[in-house]
Amino acid sequence: MPYINIKVTDENVTNKQKQLLIEGVTKILVDVLDKKPETTHIVIDEVPITNWGFNGEQYAQSKKFKNEK
Amino acid sequence: MPYINIKVTDENVTNKQKQLLIEGVTKILVDVLDKKPETTHIVIDEVPITNWGFNGEQYAQSKKFKNEK
Amino acid sequence: MPYINIKVTDENVTNKQKQLLIEGVTKILVDVLDKKPETTHIVIDEVPITNWGFNGEQYAQSKKFKNEK
Amino acid sequence: MPYINIKVTDENVTNKQKQLLIEGVTKILVDVLDKKPETTHIVIDEVPITNWGFNGEQYAQSKKFKNEK
Amino acid sequence: MPYINIKVTDENVTNKQKQLLIEGVTKILVDVLDKKPETTHIVIDEVPITNWGFNGEQYAQSKKFKNEK
Amino acid sequence: MPYINIKVTDENVTNKQKQLLIEGVTKILVDVLDKKPETTHIVIDEVPITNWGFNGEQYAQSKKFKNEK
Repeated sequence: MPYINIKVTDENVTNKQKQLLIEGVTKILVDVLDKKPETTHIVIDEVPITNWGFNGEQYAQSKKFKNEK
Repeated sequence: MPYINIKVTDENVTNKQKQLLIEGVTKILVDVLDKKPETTHIVIDEVPITNWGFNGEQYAQSKKFKNEK
Repeated sequence: MPYINIKVTDENVTNKQKQLLIEGVTKILVDVLDKKPETTHIVIDEVPITNWGFNGEQYAQSKKFKNEK
Repeated sequence: MPYINIKVTDENVTNKQKQLLIEGVTKILVDVLDKKPETTHIVIDEVPITNWGFNGEQYAQSKKFKNEK
Repeated sequence: MPYINIKVTDENVTNKQKQLLIEGVTKILVDVLDKKPETTHIVIDEVPITNWGFNGEQYAQSKKFKNEK
Repeated sequence: MPYINIKVTDENVTNKQKQLLIEGVTKILVDVLDKKPETTHIVIDEVPITNWGFNGEQYAQSKKFKNEK
């Protein structure tokens, strides 16, 4: 009976990446806790970079984000 | 003091359905726990079907979704 | 594919009340959105009254709580 | 290690207001609990007013909302 | 900037299993989305089986739970 | 209509600190977004340090935690 909520910044996550996240996280719940895939639900929330705060500032304004771009 | 978060797949939930969800869930909190409607908050999140994982795959790709369509 | 999280203050919610919440909320999702019970998950979180803030103060300290007791 | 999720109704929150929310809430966590800004994450979710229920009805339909407009 | 919340039923999850969940899920975020481990936070919530609803009833009362025991 | 969920590691947060978190965060919502305190709800979740993952390991096992102790 697991439910997993993944919050990531909305930076062009592809459909393929969503598939891999869902497959991978489900597999871990199955392997580690012996959960069944059909009762394992995963919700991915993509958060605008203006709405994610980190180190006291918007991620959109952070050095980290600017450097990585 | 209840707060209820409803996550559903984003499949054309109508405004009328949202009203019915809010009325119905509020009524249950009032009836079962004697909560007051004015302190009962409900948030409905509509999740894209590409972002909901179930049975190790995207709901958008699942047999269940395809059959029901 | 609904997932519902109910947060209520921890004030002696009985097992019977939990059953009624789960039955009632599931029924609404089934009736309003035609969801299947076997893919409807509900999690009830009971929050200590010292940890719930309302009107700028702990619920444990509020007039509302004290009057209702 | 704090994570803070702020849910507000989607009513034209400006970028400046998001900055102030993030700065302000981070500062409180630092001041009160001695947390480090670089491990303090904040996510702001803007919820459509049709999806927020309050007093048994959609916030979009409530007297409160209509009066304030 | 990922934050992952894992909700599982409280059925004697061991400390070792928690470590494996955290390692495994972090690795997936790193591998799939190129996230950094030091900005990846994971919170595991263990939910009492009386508080998890599934198929319209408490998980504690379900056939599934009883059969698996 | 704000709802704020604060997740912090469970490291002896005092009742006074909870009061200050609630007062402070409510004030920010009032000041920045002109929200009313009586519709601002805050829930503080204290997460066991074995259940918080960071940098791919349990916070309970991290250098950061050990050094700070």
